[in-house]
Amino acid sequence: MIDLEQIGRQARRAVQVLATAPTSQKNAALTAIADALITRQVDILAANAQDVAEARAGGLTDALIDRLTLTPARLEGIAADVRKVVELPDPVGMRFDERTLPNGLHLYKQRTPMGVLGVIYESRPNVTVDVAALALKSGNGAILRGGKETLRSNIALCGVVQHGLAQAGLPAECVQYIEDTSREYVLGLLRLSAYVDMIIPRGGAGLHDFCRENATIPVITGGLGICHLFVDDTADLDRSVDVIHNAKTQRPSVCNALDTALVHRTVAREFLPRLVERLDRDGVVFKAEPGAYEIVGGMPGVEAAQDGDFDTEWMALILGLKVVDGLDQAIEHIRQHSTGHSDGILTRTQAHADAFVQRVDSAAVYVNASTRFTDGAQFGLGAEVAISTQRLHARGPMALEELTTYKWVGIGDMHVRA
Amino acid sequence: MIDLEQIGRQARRAVQVLATAPTSQKNAALTAIADALITRQVDILAANAQDVAEARAGGLTDALIDRLTLTPARLEGIAADVRKVVELPDPVGMRFDERTLPNGLHLYKQRTPMGVLGVIYESRPNVTVDVAALALKSGNGAILRGGKETLRSNIALCGVVQHGLAQAGLPAECVQYIEDTSREYVLGLLRLSAYVDMIIPRGGAGLHDFCRENATIPVITGGLGICHLFVDDTADLDRSVDVIHNAKTQRPSVCNALDTALVHRTVAREFLPRLVERLDRDGVVFKAEPGAYEIVGGMPGVEAAQDGDFDTEWMALILGLKVVDGLDQAIEHIRQHSTGHSDGILTRTQAHADAFVQRVDSAAVYVNASTRFTDGAQFGLGAEVAISTQRLHARGPMALEELTTYKWVGIGDMHVRA
Repeated sequence: MIDLEQIGRQARRAVQVLATAPTSQKNAALTAIADALITRQVDILAANAQDVAEARAGGLTDALIDRLTLTPARLEGIAADVRKVVELPDPVGMRFDERTLPNGLHLYKQRTPMGVLGVIYESRPNVTVDVAALALKSGNGAILRGGKETLRSNIALCGVVQHGLAQAGLPAECVQYIEDTSREYVLGLLRLSAYVDMIIPRGGAGLHDFCRENATIPVITGGLGICHLFVDDTADLDRSVDVIHNAKTQRPSVCNALDTALVHRTVAREFLPRLVERLDRDGVVFKAEPGAYEIVGGMPGVEAAQDGDFDTEWMALILGLKVVDGLDQAIEHIRQHSTGHSDGILTRTQAHADAFVQRVDSAAVYVNASTRFTDGAQFGLGAEVAISTQRLHARGPMALEELTTYKWVGIGDMHVRA
Repeated sequence: MIDLEQIGRQARRAVQVLATAPTSQKNAALTAIADALITRQVDILAANAQDVAEARAGGLTDALIDRLTLTPARLEGIAADVRKVVELPDPVGMRFDERTLPNGLHLYKQRTPMGVLGVIYESRPNVTVDVAALALKSGNGAILRGGKETLRSNIALCGVVQHGLAQAGLPAECVQYIEDTSREYVLGLLRLSAYVDMIIPRGGAGLHDFCRENATIPVITGGLGICHLFVDDTADLDRSVDVIHNAKTQRPSVCNALDTALVHRTVAREFLPRLVERLDRDGVVFKAEPGAYEIVGGMPGVEAAQDGDFDTEWMALILGLKVVDGLDQAIEHIRQHSTGHSDGILTRTQAHADAFVQRVDSAAVYVNASTRFTDGAQFGLGAEVAISTQRLHARGPMALEELTTYKWVGIGDMHVRA
């Protein structure tokens, strides 16, 4: 029986210390965590082996088992990621929007930690350490709840995190793990509004919907990406093939991979066969609506699109193809089918690029670039805790700064309001 | 029977136009609204007179009736406020965090409207126009739901807003009013997540709690202020009396008015009698905990504090008094009793000021200034739609910029991810 209230109270008390801890102390904790991932690897790997054995007995696919498996090399990788967080600038305390009012009151905003994060995630155990590291660096506590397939691994990894915190003289309760996989504790965490400031779900659409429906705490939804590239009539067609090839095939299983190519009618007969020929070599299957099917139907890998295909996040080597009459129809299609993650235009016409950027309101909007760039590391943020596709607080890759809020600070000379 | 789904769909369609409307067109709508508030005042005042008559028949207090009464002068004031919004800079389209990545991809954030706001408010009809004007200027649609006491006034005012929108060639459905005061439509609005992006409640703690409990859309909670000033042992005592006098009496009925004065034990015997003497002249009643009561008990207006007094937002000429042993105890009291709105320290010791600013995490933290400054106009933001005391997205006064989000824009030269 888990006492969520107690976990919440402990987290709240712990972050009072963490929130104002100096950068050096937070970095010391992170370094201790990275070290312990190596020195305690026997324990971690033993716990993980039990998870893997149970998953195998339960008949999980090899792909899923691979996702939850830890190895010495993977632990090295996780430790290296933690050391990278040490190098990142500490956002807490940063001042911005500084000004002196006409009455002399000096005013600025100062970054302060969000508070306590509730993170609900599935399968991969590295998330436990990744999220803990980013939470710590930004002065936030975290209450973690991972999937049942990795319970033992996560408990071991959270133990390492707590050990690192204690080594650096910070309260271990800054990061806590809900050691019970019953659904009721997810629900309980979503309603722990007295102690938790922000919920970050990491998983499929079902998890995000469940969080949004049930939380009394703000939820950062995201991660679901039905992404589009529109090949305009003035696009460089050869290079457009390269960009779409990259967006679709460079890593098809992730949310910023391309799902649909929209092609201007004027260039469709020239462009589509080239595109299909090139991507077919990588095993891409195409879902073509009638206008596109008329052109490339019969080429290898080309199938007629079915109902719902353009509302599917493929996460695989599948690409929707659609011929459109121009910019307006492309934008209309994106408005109807995009999840607001990453959408772009390929064009050599500045006015078309400008109109696309103005009218398409996704978290990331591209001109002449692959959708695959929507990523904290690619954007130079150094890390990523989630990719937000909701509108409040932060959109796109969320890194350290996005885990903070701000307070207004007013410095006066005994100022009174007139 | 109100069809909220239809209202939502209409709002979503309307904001597609509004979101990219040029500033000049939005300003034309605002000007038309300001004009119509005057030219259509006979209709507005007639509707308001019916509301007032019903309120009087229903036995509402004179103070409440005054809050909901419109007059030609008050309409002039509301129109003037709308014209002020015309003068404010348009946040939509503003670029920030611009950078070029090492690979040459040019990246920036661009402000974009939040989308559709759901605003739930009580009594004062001016909120209908204020909120509509700020929503319009920032490119947002709004679905409004006011209190039952002002239903007819609000419908008339929303009609004026829609007239102004149409005059400027913008869809009238950008601003819609839920013309039914049944509670079920509040609940319905809170769960209209397919069409509404942000809920702004304006009212008491009960309304805020109801919204947070029931919404599937992010809620900006705030407005409740239990505010503190701590008089440090090195404070300028004469001027501290002035600052506390201002914070308590300048406008006691608002959320940034002072609720509790914490006084360092070292100066309490000197300071408290002076404070009580000065504020008693304005009719302030004091709730003194034992340490303070021991010093000023027996002076006019001084009562012994009761359980819960330090957790009450007074909104009246009442002030809690407490003697503390120093900075730590003052901060501890604030952590326990503050609603995170506005808290300050009065001191001449820089180290104490710094520690207070670092450790007190309210939306606004002051050094040597009255808490009454927490206000959009005072902060130079030009307006205010709400004061947020929650942590996500925005804290403190929310004006035009806080009604926007951003999108990432990446401009490449056919960039692909390596």
